[in-house]
Amino acid sequence: MKAKIHVYLKPGVLDPQGTAVANSLKTLGFEEVTGARQGKLIELDLSSVDAEEASERVKAMCDKLLTNPVIENYDIELSA
Amino acid sequence: MKAKIHVYLKPGVLDPQGTAVANSLKTLGFEEVTGARQGKLIELDLSSVDAEEASERVKAMCDKLLTNPVIENYDIELSA
Repeated sequence: MKAKIHVYLKPGVLDPQGTAVANSLKTLGFEEVTGARQGKLIELDLSSVDAEEASERVKAMCDKLLTNPVIENYDIELSA
Repeated sequence: MKAKIHVYLKPGVLDPQGTAVANSLKTLGFEEVTGARQGKLIELDLSSVDAEEASERVKAMCDKLLTNPVIENYDIELSA
Protein backbone atom coordinates (compact mmCIF):
# COMPACT_ATOMS: atom_id res chain seq x y z
CA MET A 1 0.00 0.00 0.00
CA LYS A 2 1.21 3.50 -0.85
CA ALA A 3 0.41 6.79 0.85
CA LYS A 4 0.92 10.21 -0.74
CA ILE A 5 0.99 13.09 1.70
CA HIS A 6 0.64 16.66 0.44
CA VAL A 7 1.82 19.22 2.97
CA TYR A 8 0.77 22.86 2.46
CA LEU A 9 1.49 25.98 4.48
CA LYS A 10 -1.72 27.30 6.06
CA PRO A 11 -3.24 30.36 4.39
CA GLY A 12 -1.78 33.49 5.97
CA VAL A 13 1.56 31.89 6.82
CA LEU A 14 4.38 33.73 5.05
CA ASP A 15 6.00 31.65 2.31
CA PRO A 16 9.29 33.30 1.23
CA GLN A 17 10.19 30.31 -0.97
CA GLY A 18 6.90 30.63 -2.86
CA THR A 19 7.41 34.38 -3.25
CA ALA A 20 10.89 33.77 -4.66
CA VAL A 21 9.46 31.26 -7.16
CA ALA A 22 6.75 33.72 -8.28
CA ASN A 23 9.26 36.57 -8.69
CA SER A 24 11.72 34.38 -10.62
CA LEU A 25 8.98 33.18 -12.98
CA LYS A 26 7.94 36.77 -13.66
CA THR A 27 11.57 37.74 -14.34
CA LEU A 28 11.75 34.88 -16.84
CA GLY A 29 8.78 36.33 -18.73
CA PHE A 30 5.91 34.31 -17.27
CA GLU A 31 3.83 37.40 -16.53
CA GLU A 32 0.64 35.40 -15.92
CA VAL A 33 1.94 34.09 -12.58
CA THR A 34 0.16 36.03 -9.82
CA GLY A 35 1.30 33.93 -6.89
CA ALA A 36 3.09 30.74 -5.87
CA ARG A 37 3.18 28.59 -2.76
CA GLN A 38 5.61 25.79 -2.13
CA GLY A 39 4.84 22.68 -0.10
CA LYS A 40 6.12 19.17 0.44
CA LEU A 41 5.16 15.86 -1.07
CA ILE A 42 5.96 12.68 0.86
CA GLU A 43 5.41 9.21 -0.59
CA LEU A 44 5.40 6.28 1.82
CA ASP A 45 5.52 2.56 1.06
CA LEU A 46 3.57 0.67 3.70
CA SER A 47 3.33 -3.03 4.49
CA SER A 48 -0.21 -2.49 5.88
CA VAL A 49 -3.14 -4.19 4.15
CA ASP A 50 -6.14 -2.57 5.86
CA ALA A 51 -6.89 0.84 4.31
CA GLU A 52 -8.79 2.20 7.30
CA GLU A 53 -6.05 1.28 9.78
CA ALA A 54 -3.37 2.58 7.40
CA SER A 55 -5.20 5.91 7.12
CA GLU A 56 -5.26 6.27 10.94
CA ARG A 57 -1.57 5.38 11.20
CA VAL A 58 -0.51 7.78 8.45
CA LYS A 59 -2.50 10.53 10.17
CA ALA A 60 -0.56 9.80 13.37
CA MET A 61 2.75 9.94 11.42
CA CYS A 62 1.80 13.36 10.04
CA ASP A 63 0.88 14.71 13.47
CA LYS A 64 3.98 13.29 15.18
CA LEU A 65 6.75 13.83 12.65
CA LEU A 66 5.92 14.79 9.09
CA THR A 67 4.11 18.09 9.49
CA ASN A 68 4.06 21.07 11.80
CA PRO A 69 0.38 21.42 12.75
CA VAL A 70 0.88 25.03 13.81
CA ILE A 71 1.70 26.26 10.31
CA GLU A 72 0.90 23.37 7.94
CA ASN A 73 -2.14 21.49 6.63
CA TYR A 74 -2.00 18.11 4.93
CA ASP A 75 -3.97 15.76 2.68
CA ILE A 76 -3.50 11.99 2.64
CA GLU A 77 -4.10 9.88 -0.47
CA LEU A 78 -3.92 6.09 -0.09
CA SER A 79 -3.60 3.66 -2.99
CA ALA A 80 -3.13 -0.12 -3.18
CA MET B 1 -6.67 29.36 -12.92
CA LYS B 2 -4.54 27.29 -10.57
CA ALA B 3 -1.74 24.83 -11.36
CA LYS B 4 -0.46 22.19 -8.97
CA ILE B 5 2.95 20.80 -9.82
CA HIS B 6 4.17 17.61 -8.17
CA VAL B 7 7.92 17.16 -8.44
CA TYR B 8 9.38 13.71 -7.76
CA LEU B 9 12.92 12.43 -7.81
CA LYS B 10 13.38 9.94 -10.65
CA PRO B 11 13.51 6.28 -9.60
CA GLY B 12 17.11 5.31 -8.91
CA VAL B 13 18.14 8.79 -7.75
CA LEU B 14 19.35 8.66 -4.15
CA ASP B 15 16.97 10.42 -1.73
CA PRO B 16 18.70 10.93 1.64
CA GLN B 17 15.83 13.07 2.94
CA GLY B 18 13.34 10.27 2.20
CA THR B 19 15.61 7.72 3.85
CA ALA B 20 15.82 9.91 6.96
CA VAL B 21 12.01 10.17 7.05
CA ALA B 22 11.61 6.38 6.76
CA ASN B 23 14.19 5.72 9.49
CA SER B 24 12.66 8.28 11.84
CA LEU B 25 9.18 6.82 11.36
CA LYS B 26 10.50 3.33 12.16
CA THR B 27 12.22 4.67 15.28
CA LEU B 28 8.89 6.19 16.36
CA GLY B 29 7.24 2.75 16.16
CA PHE B 30 5.72 2.91 12.66
CA GLU B 31 7.19 -0.47 11.67
CA GLU B 32 4.96 -0.77 8.58
CA VAL B 33 6.91 1.92 6.72
CA THR B 34 9.14 0.17 4.18
CA GLY B 35 10.27 3.25 2.27
CA ALA B 36 9.76 6.98 1.83
CA ARG B 37 10.51 9.51 -0.90
CA GLN B 38 10.27 13.23 -0.54
CA GLY B 39 9.35 15.62 -3.33
CA LYS B 40 8.09 19.15 -3.86
CA LEU B 41 4.65 20.56 -4.37
CA ILE B 42 4.32 23.93 -6.10
CA GLU B 43 0.99 25.75 -6.41
CA LEU B 44 0.75 28.57 -8.93
CA ASP B 45 -1.98 31.16 -9.36
CA LEU B 46 -2.29 32.10 -13.02
CA SER B 47 -4.15 34.88 -14.74
CA SER B 48 -4.45 32.71 -17.89
CA VAL B 49 -7.91 31.64 -19.08
CA ASP B 50 -7.12 29.09 -21.79
CA ALA B 51 -6.34 25.69 -20.24
CA GLU B 52 -4.39 24.37 -23.19
CA GLU B 53 -2.13 27.42 -23.40
CA ALA B 54 -1.70 27.45 -19.62
CA SER B 55 -0.62 23.80 -19.68
CA GLU B 56 2.07 24.57 -22.29
CA ARG B 57 3.30 27.58 -20.33
CA VAL B 58 3.44 25.69 -17.02
CA LYS B 59 5.39 22.93 -18.75
CA ALA B 60 7.89 25.57 -19.93
CA MET B 61 8.13 26.96 -16.36
CA CYS B 62 8.93 23.47 -15.06
CA ASP B 63 11.61 22.87 -17.69
CA LYS B 64 13.21 26.31 -17.25
CA LEU B 65 13.09 26.90 -13.51
CA LEU B 66 10.98 24.68 -11.30
CA THR B 67 12.49 21.25 -11.83
CA ASN B 68 15.84 19.69 -12.62
CA PRO B 69 15.07 17.44 -15.61
CA VAL B 70 18.22 15.38 -15.00
CA ILE B 71 17.03 13.99 -11.67
CA GLU B 72 13.36 14.95 -11.36
CA ASN B 73 10.00 14.09 -12.95
CA TYR B 74 6.86 16.18 -12.63
CA ASP B 75 3.07 16.06 -13.01
CA ILE B 76 0.92 19.11 -13.73
CA GLU B 77 -2.68 19.41 -12.53
CA LEU B 78 -4.70 22.42 -13.73
CA SER B 79 -7.95 23.58 -12.17
CA ALA B 80 -10.20 26.56 -12.77
